[in-house]
Amino acid sequence: MNETALVEWLAKRARSPRGRGLIEGIGDDCAIFRPSPNEDLLFTTDQLIEGVHFEETARAAAIGERALARSLSDIAAMGGDPRFCLVSLAAPGDEPWIKEFFAGLLRLARKINTTLAGGDLARSSRIYCDVMVCGSVPRGRALRRDGARPGDRLYVSGSLGKPWNRPIEPRLKLGRALRGKATSCIDLSDGLSLDLRRLCLASKVAAEVDGVPVAGGATIDRALHGGEDYELLFSLPPRAEAPTGTTCIGRLVRGRAGAVRFQGELLPPKGWDHFAPR
Amino acid sequence: MNETALVEWLAKRARSPRGRGLIEGIGDDCAIFRPSPNEDLLFTTDQLIEGVHFEETARAAAIGERALARSLSDIAAMGGDPRFCLVSLAAPGDEPWIKEFFAGLLRLARKINTTLAGGDLARSSRIYCDVMVCGSVPRGRALRRDGARPGDRLYVSGSLGKPWNRPIEPRLKLGRALRGKATSCIDLSDGLSLDLRRLCLASKVAAEVDGVPVAGGATIDRALHGGEDYELLFSLPPRAEAPTGTTCIGRLVRGRAGAVRFQGELLPPKGWDHFAPR
Repeated sequence: MNETALVEWLAKRARSPRGRGLIEGIGDDCAIFRPSPNEDLLFTTDQLIEGVHFEETARAAAIGERALARSLSDIAAMGGDPRFCLVSLAAPGDEPWIKEFFAGLLRLARKINTTLAGGDLARSSRIYCDVMVCGSVPRGRALRRDGARPGDRLYVSGSLGKPWNRPIEPRLKLGRALRGKATSCIDLSDGLSLDLRRLCLASKVAAEVDGVPVAGGATIDRALHGGEDYELLFSLPPRAEAPTGTTCIGRLVRGRAGAVRFQGELLPPKGWDHFAPR
Repeated sequence: MNETALVEWLAKRARSPRGRGLIEGIGDDCAIFRPSPNEDLLFTTDQLIEGVHFEETARAAAIGERALARSLSDIAAMGGDPRFCLVSLAAPGDEPWIKEFFAGLLRLARKINTTLAGGDLARSSRIYCDVMVCGSVPRGRALRRDGARPGDRLYVSGSLGKPWNRPIEPRLKLGRALRGKATSCIDLSDGLSLDLRRLCLASKVAAEVDGVPVAGGATIDRALHGGEDYELLFSLPPRAEAPTGTTCIGRLVRGRAGAVRFQGELLPPKGWDHFAPR
């Protein structure tokens, strides 16, 4: 199967581009999207690389699903509704593998009503993928990192420290439910200690964490610093009601911007950093 | 320099996100864009991989510039005006190299008034990049591949068969000038024989090519089948005036969709295909 045949195979399986604003999907130099007048658009992209984010032995369908899910988690963190994605894939020219990869990705895409609108294919000895997702929010309603205020309560969804290679459930429903309620929100991709620090830096506040929901089998160290949880970390005003499935883990306070304390002790941002000295 | 510091360095050098619709650039989970009511948005993405698209010895700034230019060529082919880009880069953690890469990319981005709005960084032994560009056109005015009609004249910009590693000049100005005039347009990235076939298939027409402008030092074979020209191939109605810097190379005719003849002989689509058997 050559590239042209592969693109045709994909175009048949991608959701119909018509509807929800997409005028043209796979098949031209660019995808064409017609925005509605009442929406802001969100854009994010995430790489998934063999030997860095997954091992050679991982299943193709699981890699495809995970590649999309990671970007969806960023859309969830902004309260967005995913609309379409572009998928870049470099892989050895192994047709069953490539089809399996896209089958996994498209299964998740269909589940959340998101169209594969385009992308780029290349042959490479190592597998590399990059998934861009466009989402939308009603105008002016995106959840951001920088709106937390001293006194706000801090929450996380689910539990932390889960095995990194499980399927990811992007918290899209929760993100949408937090629109107009949460004062800030971020997704936990690099570890609570680092992502909470980022939220606090953006909002110019400090944080006090009392305790976190630790996943079964995980250590507290992994729950605090391990990455790839893809849960939402968000803040609510003091008297707001917490959505179900979330846990209050502490509060935001005045203090040095970005300083995070866990049970009274300063918590160093030890989460994942691709370029940290090793 | 760790990832956080690198992102801060980039955020300072990216154009200010405010203006032209971009509300938030680097610094949150997603970039936020507020479309105007009279525009359609164009989306494209292109990978550039060490050992596939460039050699280890290539200069970092040239790679960065080329990575952006390739996607811009797709925006040009649809008559678009580039607005912002997302850049994914996986590279060894070599700070001067990464800064050089982005310096080259940002130089071109500034020249064409395009904002670096976000992306993703990862460490990898081989260099891999993927650049997504969002462009805009007045509503309903995107140039497409599928509008060519029998009788239309066929044109290319510049000359074909140029050395593949030269700097690319995306034909943005020409693309904009063709809005409302060209009946179809595509960019020449994989070779005239293959890209013209794609245009003909989409438009359900055949083509007759009389001759092509061959770049100095190139063979006619390279001009017909070599990729990476990044010129525009487009069709105009029979009596339309050709823009300066373009050459009429033939015409579109009734016949088997996708069939291309060069000086009377059938021209096989021998251009670049990543997954073709080798």
